[in-house]
Amino acid sequence: MKSEKGLIFVISAPSGAGKTTICREFLKVAPRVRFSVSSTTRKPRRGEVEGRDYHFVSEEQFREGIAQGEFIEWEINYGNLYGTSKGHITGFLEEGYDMLFDVDTRGAKNLKTLYPDAVFVFILPPSMDALKERLGKRGSERGEPLAARLERAMQEMGENKRYDYVIFNDTIQASVDILRSIYIAEKNRRIRLDEKIDKLMQ
Amino acid sequence: MKSEKGLIFVISAPSGAGKTTICREFLKVAPRVRFSVSSTTRKPRRGEVEGRDYHFVSEEQFREGIAQGEFIEWEINYGNLYGTSKGHITGFLEEGYDMLFDVDTRGAKNLKTLYPDAVFVFILPPSMDALKERLGKRGSERGEPLAARLERAMQEMGENKRYDYVIFNDTIQASVDILRSIYIAEKNRRIRLDEKIDKLMQ
Repeated sequence: MKSEKGLIFVISAPSGAGKTTICREFLKVAPRVRFSVSSTTRKPRRGEVEGRDYHFVSEEQFREGIAQGEFIEWEINYGNLYGTSKGHITGFLEEGYDMLFDVDTRGAKNLKTLYPDAVFVFILPPSMDALKERLGKRGSERGEPLAARLERAMQEMGENKRYDYVIFNDTIQASVDILRSIYIAEKNRRIRLDEKIDKLMQ
Repeated sequence: MKSEKGLIFVISAPSGAGKTTICREFLKVAPRVRFSVSSTTRKPRRGEVEGRDYHFVSEEQFREGIAQGEFIEWEINYGNLYGTSKGHITGFLEEGYDMLFDVDTRGAKNLKTLYPDAVFVFILPPSMDALKERLGKRGSERGEPLAARLERAMQEMGENKRYDYVIFNDTIQASVDILRSIYIAEKNRRIRLDEKIDKLMQ
């Protein structure tokens, strides 16, 4: 194992837990981390930017990508396709950057198979009341009722057992500090530093 | 496993790596952490304070403590006795504080047996030149020559494989930030938060 190769960081959360904001703020304080921009066939939400949040593609383009083996992992979520394109991440990892993946629990499962050494972080709302409030505010592009969205969030939250770390998102600032701490701690795991230690002691 | 019980944090380093200063500065930014003050029969060094750095006791007192089962672990180092007194830590852990142990590699081995869930951190000098310089500056209360102290430091450094994390002490400030990050990350391990997660999802 090359001790200073890029670290892979995978983050999931139920809708309404605040994951997207935390990831964005974390990237500002972690200059060695690159965001893995997923491809999706879903329409952009308000405020989402092509190439920053997602690569928005047509279903035809996405299917073409699958046929050509372009995705290292992909899944269907409510009729929309989501996937991680090989070309977007291999270069960064080879250059020694660390990568942040913002994926749902199924995407995380796929990444775990590909990268067993990756670090998995799950973000939870601080309380069920907070979750209900945030889900209520967001509304839904699918016109799905609040009760159904809440049930789905609960199902996703049940997947937390597959993750290494859990962050209760009380405030964005505290959560970003925890995420940054997890990142720094993982970079200082002895097992990732064996080469550097051997070099010191030669 | 009680999910929010006190975390045990064990730190070791070869002489001259800068451990004592890092621990002191870390304690200032981690109010939930209490320092486990070891007992020792060695004489205080300049700047060391009774009850803060060590409990300085006579050999007779120390042997009496051993006889009465007062120490959860102890070892002899160059004719001096060092040990962790039960009474000093049990109370803190029960009150939910986290504990920081500053012990040599043998003390760490003993603590690993007692607390297999503890977190073990090893501090290394940034380079061999830096280590030589710091060992040279410190001098030795035993009149031990530099070459012998360097050899002993190398032996201690060889024990790093037993530790979970390694910090290269480039600057005190950076090392304290890493130590604090390891602490925060470990507090957010999913396995330590199971109770809190179950409570949220009830």
